[in-house]
Amino acid sequence: MALIVHKYGGTSMGTTERIRNVAKRIVKWVRAGHQVVVVPSAMSGETNRLLALAAELEPAERSAQTCRELDALAATGEQASSALLAIALQAEGQPAISFTGWQVPVRTNSAYMKARIESIESTRIRKELDAGRVVIVTGFQGIDEQGHITTLGRGGSDTSAVAIAAAIKADECLIYTDVDGVYTTDPRVVPNAQRLKTISFEEMLELASLGSKVLQIRSVEFAGKYRVPLRVLSSFTPWDIDLAEEAASGTLITFEEDEKMEKAVVSGIAFTRDEAKISVLGVPDTPGIAYAILGAVAEAGIEVDVIIQNLSKDGKTDFSFTVSRADYDRAVKVLNEKVLPNLDQGASLDGNKQISKVSIVGIGMKSHAGVASTMFRALSQEGINIQMISTSEIKTSVVIDEKYVELAVRSLHTAFGLDGEVSIDVPKRNDEK
Amino acid sequence: MALIVHKYGGTSMGTTERIRNVAKRIVKWVRAGHQVVVVPSAMSGETNRLLALAAELEPAERSAQTCRELDALAATGEQASSALLAIALQAEGQPAISFTGWQVPVRTNSAYMKARIESIESTRIRKELDAGRVVIVTGFQGIDEQGHITTLGRGGSDTSAVAIAAAIKADECLIYTDVDGVYTTDPRVVPNAQRLKTISFEEMLELASLGSKVLQIRSVEFAGKYRVPLRVLSSFTPWDIDLAEEAASGTLITFEEDEKMEKAVVSGIAFTRDEAKISVLGVPDTPGIAYAILGAVAEAGIEVDVIIQNLSKDGKTDFSFTVSRADYDRAVKVLNEKVLPNLDQGASLDGNKQISKVSIVGIGMKSHAGVASTMFRALSQEGINIQMISTSEIKTSVVIDEKYVELAVRSLHTAFGLDGEVSIDVPKRNDEK
Repeated sequence: MALIVHKYGGTSMGTTERIRNVAKRIVKWVRAGHQVVVVPSAMSGETNRLLALAAELEPAERSAQTCRELDALAATGEQASSALLAIALQAEGQPAISFTGWQVPVRTNSAYMKARIESIESTRIRKELDAGRVVIVTGFQGIDEQGHITTLGRGGSDTSAVAIAAAIKADECLIYTDVDGVYTTDPRVVPNAQRLKTISFEEMLELASLGSKVLQIRSVEFAGKYRVPLRVLSSFTPWDIDLAEEAASGTLITFEEDEKMEKAVVSGIAFTRDEAKISVLGVPDTPGIAYAILGAVAEAGIEVDVIIQNLSKDGKTDFSFTVSRADYDRAVKVLNEKVLPNLDQGASLDGNKQISKVSIVGIGMKSHAGVASTMFRALSQEGINIQMISTSEIKTSVVIDEKYVELAVRSLHTAFGLDGEVSIDVPKRNDEK
Repeated sequence: MALIVHKYGGTSMGTTERIRNVAKRIVKWVRAGHQVVVVPSAMSGETNRLLALAAELEPAERSAQTCRELDALAATGEQASSALLAIALQAEGQPAISFTGWQVPVRTNSAYMKARIESIESTRIRKELDAGRVVIVTGFQGIDEQGHITTLGRGGSDTSAVAIAAAIKADECLIYTDVDGVYTTDPRVVPNAQRLKTISFEEMLELASLGSKVLQIRSVEFAGKYRVPLRVLSSFTPWDIDLAEEAASGTLITFEEDEKMEKAVVSGIAFTRDEAKISVLGVPDTPGIAYAILGAVAEAGIEVDVIIQNLSKDGKTDFSFTVSRADYDRAVKVLNEKVLPNLDQGASLDGNKQISKVSIVGIGMKSHAGVASTMFRALSQEGINIQMISTSEIKTSVVIDEKYVELAVRSLHTAFGLDGEVSIDVPKRNDEK
């Protein structure tokens, strides 16, 4: 007997028919002798429907109080889907009970709309499991110290599931979703991308932070911190497939570096399209110049990704960094108003909103020299110019012209020996808000 | 400065445009110096939408556990409308905060789907009022001792509003709805029915229990128990009408018997159409016979209304009672299976599903003899046969053939001098589930 957490995304819960299938799948696990805790997302479309109503009423500027109310509003989506799933399980003859975030309780800080989980009380969940019930806990939400409802932000239900698995010391956390696992890269760009049977936690963390949409990054961080074995698998297989087959499907995120992983130098290729580059040209190469530039940008709440500083020449240097494309105009405004006036007169700005970042990720890079040079050679053979480079122990990222992104991903996929049979077309995961 | 509770029904909250108008109306009251607590229903249609989803999944027999989940599901409707109203108030520049039943908390017993309020903690509400905020409290819901979500049943938001008004010692509880007050009878049956400016609590209680849909009976009971001044008024007047005019509109339910009330012998005429009559004929007239018959019916959870026992003849009597038409078939089954076999062989059943109950209600009946005879004369003049009679201190009810109900109501309305000018057509209140 194992203690298992199942997490189902919004498309998996999208209709009563699908909720019934989710219930039947859970019952299969219970009848095989397992204890199951389920974390469902809201029915697909529901959170957007609620927030669209709010958008018709909202004040021009969102105060913390408005964010508080938006959280109280959005949290109803998971409360409803959780109750519906409990009812569907009861209709299958399976005792079940649903709990909201405050009933568990799932305690968070008070950062409305992007709260972080601080602790989860496991007593009530364990008591109901021991009474033979399936326990359903609303994803995406909690309460703060003052008893206000909070939500975790987009994709927060993944994080809820992993945090609950950690709190109850579950044997495995299964993320049922509308893709059937983690791929070497996006199968829509590379049709012969392969599903990975396992991937290390470190690699998954890099892939999630570098643009892979399969798992929300905070859920991977949680899994790493508490060493929760995590599996991504499809909720669209028939509910009555063999349990052993289902339990071994998808992609397992592991903490042991097995032999297979040692062999693969690069496990996956991630990319993002929504980046922009800003260069501050002709700045004095003095201590504190990076802070003078990036401090102002950070103060405006803009996250900076790749950063490079050119070699100095005549006491001047160029300083470049990337931001999310949505933040580009605001970052340029901050620089023009708060930074350039304090720099030498010769300083100027340059920018490019048509860039992409392509990253290779692999735990094998730790022990293999020459991975970066293989990457650079492959890109150069395609005539793709590298604008910026950023490396860590298990990833190398390059910033390139956006128009080359598919070509770059395909050539790297081949260069690192990741091509497999042409897979069936796997849609982008679409079940999280 | 007064402390006022506003309650808005589902149609008043039915669209974002209407929610905005509710917000503007509340702001008018706050700017006039009042503290306001608001109890909104769910947006019209929302509770039915949620319960329809559940109906697609429900087990054949509803257990207490299923009812628990239905309550968790249904309670989301008011949580969402309350948050939306808080956002709309904030957009008007008015600080506001919404609380769910568990956040107040509103404590109830554990009777899911028909819970009764046991206590309401006023500390948190008062604190927020004193901080200058409008406080919105979800209607219809609470939590039980174990922290499970409960709902109060149909029309429960009226009860929530009155109970909250009692808990915070509000000066008045205003029930904003889609009719503009309490009428002498249903204006769809008697076009010249008149709106009552005031009505005594006792009369309102009788009217509510005898078929008037304007106020949920438990809300009237609460108002009586805690002497909460209660006013029923229209939410469809323009939000910016003069506040003094609005505050005096509709119908006030009072606890003082003023002169006007002394003069009116009968204040209102109520009627129900969904009744059925069952007679057990030829039963032995022995002690315990009423219990033998009605005990079995009550055990089956069927409520009995009017009861009469004929004069005995040769040691035998006939015993008749009314039940809700929906319970008729079940009641007949219970009698055939559990009661008749224990009675003398000559006993038999008779039934009629085409009956109605018409009631006259008036606090003046206490001190005026002859009210019943006026009623009987009026009905006899129209050739309407009275099948059963039931009286209390301030009401007289008669059971008649259903086809005469409109004729009976109109003739009684005239006989007791209630006819006024022909009023505008007032729709039946339709904003409660």
